[in-house]
Amino acid sequence: MPSEFDLIYRYLASFGGGPSVVLGVGDDGAALRISPAHELIVSTDTMVEGRHFPINTLAEHIAYRAVAAAVSDLAAMAADPIGMTLALTVPHADELWMHGLSMGLASAVGDFSIPLVGGDLTRGPLCLSVTVMGECPAGQSLRRTGARVGDVLCVTGTLGDAAAGLMLIEGTSQLSVLPDIDTVDFLEQRFYRPSPRLEFCHWLRDNATSAIDISDGLLADITHIAQASGVGLVVDVESLPLSPALSSLSMLNSGKLALTGGDDYELAVTVAPGTILPEGLRRIGLVTEGEQVKCSGDIEGAGYDHFK
Amino acid sequence: MPSEFDLIYRYLASFGGGPSVVLGVGDDGAALRISPAHELIVSTDTMVEGRHFPINTLAEHIAYRAVAAAVSDLAAMAADPIGMTLALTVPHADELWMHGLSMGLASAVGDFSIPLVGGDLTRGPLCLSVTVMGECPAGQSLRRTGARVGDVLCVTGTLGDAAAGLMLIEGTSQLSVLPDIDTVDFLEQRFYRPSPRLEFCHWLRDNATSAIDISDGLLADITHIAQASGVGLVVDVESLPLSPALSSLSMLNSGKLALTGGDDYELAVTVAPGTILPEGLRRIGLVTEGEQVKCSGDIEGAGYDHFK
Repeated sequence: MPSEFDLIYRYLASFGGGPSVVLGVGDDGAALRISPAHELIVSTDTMVEGRHFPINTLAEHIAYRAVAAAVSDLAAMAADPIGMTLALTVPHADELWMHGLSMGLASAVGDFSIPLVGGDLTRGPLCLSVTVMGECPAGQSLRRTGARVGDVLCVTGTLGDAAAGLMLIEGTSQLSVLPDIDTVDFLEQRFYRPSPRLEFCHWLRDNATSAIDISDGLLADITHIAQASGVGLVVDVESLPLSPALSSLSMLNSGKLALTGGDDYELAVTVAPGTILPEGLRRIGLVTEGEQVKCSGDIEGAGYDHFK
Repeated sequence: MPSEFDLIYRYLASFGGGPSVVLGVGDDGAALRISPAHELIVSTDTMVEGRHFPINTLAEHIAYRAVAAAVSDLAAMAADPIGMTLALTVPHADELWMHGLSMGLASAVGDFSIPLVGGDLTRGPLCLSVTVMGECPAGQSLRRTGARVGDVLCVTGTLGDAAAGLMLIEGTSQLSVLPDIDTVDFLEQRFYRPSPRLEFCHWLRDNATSAIDISDGLLADITHIAQASGVGLVVDVESLPLSPALSSLSMLNSGKLALTGGDDYELAVTVAPGTILPEGLRRIGLVTEGEQVKCSGDIEGAGYDHFK
C-alpha cells in the first residue's frame, strides 16, 4: 500500500475509541465487547458514486451520509451502535479529498457514537461500504415481522425532504421561483446529512411491534413490513408529516415525495393501539387485514394521485 | 432494486444458517449470538477487479477468494467464525455470473463454517467487500504486539505458491517449459482458493505470542509484527516451507516468491522458545532485539538475493 494511503489510514484510526472497543484499527481485526445478555446486530450498506450520491458530491457529505444510512439500520433494529468498519475504494489518494472525507467521518462518528474500528482502503472506482455493529438485549431487536392487525402505523420526523433536497442538488426540481436559501439548505442537508433515529431505540424496544427505516420511500419500505408481517397497511395521506420547508415549495408534489421519495432515513414503526407516542413520532395509518398497502384521505389534495 | 437482484438476494439468503445466527438475511440487520465471556472479532476486506484478481476471473473463484482472505484475518486473531456480510457491487446482474458467484460463496460458507447473514447488492464497477465476524474468549485474541525476544517464528503451510499461481494465470512466469497440469492446477488453486488456517485457532490461543496472516508477502507482513512488538526478526531462508509444486519449477525464483509473494493467506506466528509445534507449523526463524527484519542462511541458494 502506498505511503499516502498509510498516512490516511492512521488518520482514520483516530476515530476508533469507544466503551465497547477492546482493540481498534491496526491489527488483523478489531475486538469489541458485547454486553452480557445482548445480541450483536449487524448491517452493511454500500454507496457507489453516481448511484447513491451525485458525482462531485463533497467527500465530507459522502462519508457522513454513508455512515448515517448504515446506522439507520441499527436504529430500525432498536440497537445501540458499538462500532463500524469502512471499506473505502478510491480512484486516487487526493489529500484534500481524503481530508474532507475524514471530516465527514469524524462528524458521523461523534454524532452517532459509533467508533470506526476497522477498514480496508483500496484503489478503484469510488465506493464506500459501511458495516455497522450494534447491540440489543437478546430477543428485543425489532423486526419487520411483528405488526399485528389493529396496530397503529407511525413515522419519525418529516418525509420527502431528502428527495426534494436531491432534486435541488441535481437541478431537477423545475421550480420557476428559486426558494429562499434557508429552505434550500434545510432540504439539501436532509439529503447530505440524514439523522438516523437512534433516540427512539430504547422506547421502540419497549413499545414497537415492528420497524423499518425509510431509505427507498415510505410506500416501498412499509410494503416490506406488510409482506414480512402478513398484514395490510392503510396510510392516511393527510397525516403525513411534512416539513415547513417542503410545504413551502408548492410547485413540488410534496405528498408524492413524502410517499415515495427515498433517502429520508426516518423510521416507520407499528405500535399496539392506544400506545402513547413520544414527541417526534407521528401516527400516519393503521395495520389491517390483507397484505396490501393502501392510501386513504384526500390523495389529490396531498398532491399524490397516480402511484402504482 | 430490480427484480433480478431480488432473485439473487433470495438465493444468497440461503447461506445464512449457523449456531450463532439469531436472525439472518432479510431484515434491516442480522442478529448474532456471542458466547458468554467472548469478544467479537471483526475484519473487512475488499477485492476490486483488476487489482486483487485478474479481469475475467471466474465468479466462483472471486467469491471464494474474497471470503477466504477475510476469514484469514479471523484465523490470525485466533477467532472462530460466526458470520459475515457481503457488500457486492456488480456492473449488471448476469444470471450465469451470479450463479458462479453463489457457487463460490456456498463453497466458502461450507468450508469455513461462516454463514452469510447480510449484505448489500448494488450496481457499479465490480467490487466485493466482505466483513467477517468471529468470536474469541475475552482477552485471548491474538495480536501483532506480543512477540518477545527469544520467541520462535513459525509459519503454517507452504509459501510462494499463490504468487507462482498468479504468474501462471497471468502468463508472466516466463517459463520456457510448461509445467505439468497437476503442478499448474495446484499453484493456481492456491491463488484462487486460499485455505485460511482456522484449524490452528485454538492451539494458537494457548501457545502463540503474536500472529499475522500473510497476504502481502512474508517479509512485508512480519515487519508488522516486528514494528508492533518492538522486536527484530531473523528469517532462516533455508527453512522456508516450499511445496513440491513450487520447488519443481526451478526457473521460478522460489525463495523470493516465498519471502515476498503475497496471497498465500498462511499464518506467521511467534511462540515461546521450546514450544512443541503441531503438524503443519514450521519453524522459520527467531525473534531478536532491534526492530529489523533480516534473513539468514544461504540466500543465494534459496534464489533470493536482492530484497530491499
